[in-house]
Amino acid sequence: MTTSSIQELTARVRAFADERDWQQFHTPKNLAMALTGEVGELVAEFQWLTADQSAAVMADPELGPRVRAELGDVTIYLVRLADVLGIDLVAAALDKLADSARRYPVDQARGSAAKARDEIS
Amino acid sequence: MTTSSIQELTARVRAFADERDWQQFHTPKNLAMALTGEVGELVAEFQWLTADQSAAVMADPELGPRVRAELGDVTIYLVRLADVLGIDLVAAALDKLADSARRYPVDQARGSAAKARDEIS
Amino acid sequence: MTTSSIQELTARVRAFADERDWQQFHTPKNLAMALTGEVGELVAEFQWLTADQSAAVMADPELGPRVRAELGDVTIYLVRLADVLGIDLVAAALDKLADSARRYPVDQARGSAAKARDEIS
Amino acid sequence: MTTSSIQELTARVRAFADERDWQQFHTPKNLAMALTGEVGELVAEFQWLTADQSAAVMADPELGPRVRAELGDVTIYLVRLADVLGIDLVAAALDKLADSARRYPVDQARGSAAKARDEIS
Repeated sequence: MTTSSIQELTARVRAFADERDWQQFHTPKNLAMALTGEVGELVAEFQWLTADQSAAVMADPELGPRVRAELGDVTIYLVRLADVLGIDLVAAALDKLADSARRYPVDQARGSAAKARDEIS
Repeated sequence: MTTSSIQELTARVRAFADERDWQQFHTPKNLAMALTGEVGELVAEFQWLTADQSAAVMADPELGPRVRAELGDVTIYLVRLADVLGIDLVAAALDKLADSARRYPVDQARGSAAKARDEIS
Repeated sequence: MTTSSIQELTARVRAFADERDWQQFHTPKNLAMALTGEVGELVAEFQWLTADQSAAVMADPELGPRVRAELGDVTIYLVRLADVLGIDLVAAALDKLADSARRYPVDQARGSAAKARDEIS
Repeated sequence: MTTSSIQELTARVRAFADERDWQQFHTPKNLAMALTGEVGELVAEFQWLTADQSAAVMADPELGPRVRAELGDVTIYLVRLADVLGIDLVAAALDKLADSARRYPVDQARGSAAKARDEIS
């Protein structure tokens, strides 16, 4: 699916909402809440797994598809929220990554859990 | 920034982590938690705003850039989690959207808050 | 139910976990994730409601009991996490409230959305 | 602090909000969002820790007090939300625990990760 860009996804999610007259519910405030709910469902898939189990989750015939579906939901709401706000997600992420590169220079940050703890945020 | 695709962002975030030896912290379990933390910061920007205020948030010289930065953080961790799991976010979202289209046919779902309540998820 | 204190609830949740040998899953890390999942379910109940609808939610025969059940779940995991960590929740909350009282003096904070925005946290 | 009950905490949080005219912001919808933000901060404290590190977190002179303070914040907003909704948190939790006891009988649930995965919720 080489042509499926984030722009195309954004347009499809917008059309999905428009066709159902759901724009009225899609304020940034409401969408931020919906995003939270979906992230909560994603986290719930991992909550009782060990680190190793979580790394192998996609090989599990039951859990793998569920995790993929939850990531799909999270992506839908994130893309919708960005669309409503007029934000380019990839550009916003790249800007933030550049900030983080300045705050955590490679030579000081290597392997440091203390640094990693506050990390990219 | 026409060339900045989600694939390019994914590669940059991966390089960022690799250079700092942070792969060791980036289990799916840990990244799902980090995503939660960032979504929590995003939600906090909206918590006391009315629906109308939230719709105008990008015009606020202080709040607008903060919301954009938080969306950037959320995107970074979402892209990183998908990379570690080997999931194509856009494809996962499109599959989920197709499911939702079946569950909420246009003619039955129009404007329905009850339907919208369970919505895309 | 005058005798149902938070201490009694804590003891009951502990017994529930012990009887099922679930202590092994109840690390602070896992319980923090479980708490997130439950809060996500709670937030999802409110995501499409207006402020006024949210204020009237307990009068709704379908939504009211669901919100109460979600608050119950959140409380169970919060109490369990505090038990595992050895933290007195009420004392921790009172200490934090005293901090907030110093940071937001009544005469400066009255009705201020700006102050309220950062509020108790 | 034998007298510090959840009822007393509830009354203190209510007075704190009333004195600052913050009731106007404290709709259930907004408080559910605020709770999310605080849980996000709590989760962030655990995100890069191993299971063992998380179990020892209260012995860390820097992390321990931060975790306690975050639990305090979560408790404040949970208690405030319950107050606004007119819900008795302990009673709601005990009712939910009784439900879970029926759904996960001791003899079938012992030590089962599969059962624990869906667990109390």
